[in-house]
Amino acid sequence: MRIPIKDVTPETERAVVIGWINEVRDLGGLAFYILRDRTGFLQVTIVKKKAPEAVVAAAKEASRESVVRVTGTIKATEKAPGGRELIPDTFEIISRAESPLPLDVSEKVPAEIDTRLDNRYLDARRPRVAAIFQIRSAVTHAINNLLFEEGFTNITTSKIVAAATEGGTELFPLAYFEKEAFLNQSPQLYKQMMMAAGFEKVFEIAPIFRAEEHNTTRHLNEATSIDVEISFADHHDVMDLLERVIVRAYTAVTETCGPALEALEIELAIPETPFPRITYAEAIDIAALSIDEDISYGDDLSTAAERAIGEEMGVHYFITDWPTEIKPYYAMPYEDNPTVCKAFDLMHPRMELSSGAQRIHEHDLLLTQIAAKGLSPEGFSFYLQPFRYGMPPHAGWGLGMDRLIMTMLGLQNIREAVLFPRDRHRVTP
Amino acid sequence: MRIPIKDVTPETERAVVIGWINEVRDLGGLAFYILRDRTGFLQVTIVKKKAPEAVVAAAKEASRESVVRVTGTIKATEKAPGGRELIPDTFEIISRAESPLPLDVSEKVPAEIDTRLDNRYLDARRPRVAAIFQIRSAVTHAINNLLFEEGFTNITTSKIVAAATEGGTELFPLAYFEKEAFLNQSPQLYKQMMMAAGFEKVFEIAPIFRAEEHNTTRHLNEATSIDVEISFADHHDVMDLLERVIVRAYTAVTETCGPALEALEIELAIPETPFPRITYAEAIDIAALSIDEDISYGDDLSTAAERAIGEEMGVHYFITDWPTEIKPYYAMPYEDNPTVCKAFDLMHPRMELSSGAQRIHEHDLLLTQIAAKGLSPEGFSFYLQPFRYGMPPHAGWGLGMDRLIMTMLGLQNIREAVLFPRDRHRVTP
Repeated sequence: MRIPIKDVTPETERAVVIGWINEVRDLGGLAFYILRDRTGFLQVTIVKKKAPEAVVAAAKEASRESVVRVTGTIKATEKAPGGRELIPDTFEIISRAESPLPLDVSEKVPAEIDTRLDNRYLDARRPRVAAIFQIRSAVTHAINNLLFEEGFTNITTSKIVAAATEGGTELFPLAYFEKEAFLNQSPQLYKQMMMAAGFEKVFEIAPIFRAEEHNTTRHLNEATSIDVEISFADHHDVMDLLERVIVRAYTAVTETCGPALEALEIELAIPETPFPRITYAEAIDIAALSIDEDISYGDDLSTAAERAIGEEMGVHYFITDWPTEIKPYYAMPYEDNPTVCKAFDLMHPRMELSSGAQRIHEHDLLLTQIAAKGLSPEGFSFYLQPFRYGMPPHAGWGLGMDRLIMTMLGLQNIREAVLFPRDRHRVTP
Repeated sequence: MRIPIKDVTPETERAVVIGWINEVRDLGGLAFYILRDRTGFLQVTIVKKKAPEAVVAAAKEASRESVVRVTGTIKATEKAPGGRELIPDTFEIISRAESPLPLDVSEKVPAEIDTRLDNRYLDARRPRVAAIFQIRSAVTHAINNLLFEEGFTNITTSKIVAAATEGGTELFPLAYFEKEAFLNQSPQLYKQMMMAAGFEKVFEIAPIFRAEEHNTTRHLNEATSIDVEISFADHHDVMDLLERVIVRAYTAVTETCGPALEALEIELAIPETPFPRITYAEAIDIAALSIDEDISYGDDLSTAAERAIGEEMGVHYFITDWPTEIKPYYAMPYEDNPTVCKAFDLMHPRMELSSGAQRIHEHDLLLTQIAAKGLSPEGFSFYLQPFRYGMPPHAGWGLGMDRLIMTMLGLQNIREAVLFPRDRHRVTP
């Protein structure tokens, strides 16, 4: 019976292991094969005069990154990783790798991000890369668990939609039989319909699609969004939830991803709550003091501004109380000052992670806001209708999974947090 | 503090409840308002001469399906649902519903599926409908949990792809900046790349898109697929896993969705394992005996054939050992009889739920099979490359979430298992 490499200890007597050949060192009479599976490394030591002929012959044919099955006895040794080596009595090549490899898996030769992505199946063999996706998987699971514990219903909404519901023009068009359709840029309006349906607490973790032309290290055209919506809640309630989500994600990684964090050489600090909450006006003041740009109340926050504020804050923080004019039409204005709305962004010192708000639940106010943005209500009557038949107050947010992973692990490029990223120029592999 | 309606008992003294007005019965001096939230129903009883004037006035304005907030004292009574009623001292309309409603939520008037889907936000207020999606959410969570327990990595693969990787022509084309791209019909090839990457056990629960023109009660053009792939496994291993997944889903629903099952009037029986496994040849024999169609070895199973076999079997079952010719090119042929392959379908008596196989992991054999299907390997060289650099043996399956829910709950139309279905004619809401 095969055992995972991490379970092979100096005390193990015999072992069957299956893995990839990470490295070969042939010293003449002696050869070392470093095997790798998803749990670790194991040195196979072949003393050519002592080993069975079939083992020596097979090992000679075994190129780097071939898949092999090796059985033998385990010996304790201080010279090998993990303090043990395998002395083989069988050595079988399951799948032989051609040479040269399109990418050096052993990480001795650094590769450009494009070469890495073109050969993701090799790139992801590197423990540092595999670690990122093990952590991403753990984060997904942790957030699922937290939301289930808190009574949320996991929903699935369609990614093919008929209209540009957020009013933007940055949509990918699609030939849907005789009709034109689009890829959905956000489940926002569907989440709100589920509030009208009385589901009260819903979430979805799913792809969103944005046909934005910018090509940066922190934007992708296909992204994973964690979307949440809650009835009878305001922006404060959902900011509190967002803190719990972030803390749960970091905690789960700390508790369950030790080897992955080690591979990445990261000591993860769990963010302290409550996260500071500053108003948009305060954020603008901080930015205006720190950067050499003309910046005033009502402006969107530029990348430079975000960076300056992030440096000042140093931890996760919220920016609240945004000008109504620069937030989407569905953000609820304050009753006593409608030029400011109950919207917020969750910021990591490096970048924005999440946007949310208490939403407008009153039909006529929503219509007014749609008109104020210069949008035409006809385009989304299917969205407006639920507001006429008993819509509860509600609030929610969307959290970028890719950015959450990127900032948690200090990755320089969002493409490192996504297995098969899609950008301005990339639709493969 | 608001309490969920299910927590209001005859012993409760005072309660604040928020919900929708499901029904109004005004008997003159006496009026009953049945409130509904996602947890149950509560009767609000207003004796007009005794109730505060403000309550009587507000209640008069409160149309069916309005959202209201009511506070008052609880009295035990055998005449009301749950053995208790609320005698209000405040009654506030949070969101007033217009009349008439586009759909009768109280289920007294049956509605066509199209009317229901056009007004899903009202349709899903019905406890029978909400129950389906609570159960679907529980199933998603249960399957996630099982796969995490078994050491799977949750992956996210791109839905925008460059090529028709399964060779079909049934793809939705998409304008991706200057390039043509498609919506992915299955994560199959990405799962296999992750096997090449050494991830060993991966899963994804995500949308798939098929531009098939048929318009039936069991096909949709956008579906949710539960996809699994395992290295160093064969078709038997992944059939065993599939049984565990089905059983876990049914068990979780039985254990955690009591009220939802009650609303649907379903007593769920957990399928017994192992599921019977019959070969394709045996299945053809059963069908040939039962139906009036010309059917012979090598044919696809028609709907009528599936139905006949399902009636004979009466429980979940596998059809194994399919002719290589009618399964996808990546299914592994038997070494001793390559005209038959290690593919299987998981069948519910009513219909197919899942397809899977041990996959081909040898590059040259894969190339041969691609050519045998009349496909051009140039179209997916990015897919073939991983097979040249150390591809482990592997097996997997895709399980249709929508059909799983449909068959579990005995729904007549797959559209009932999907919040916002997409079919030949429907892209809204």
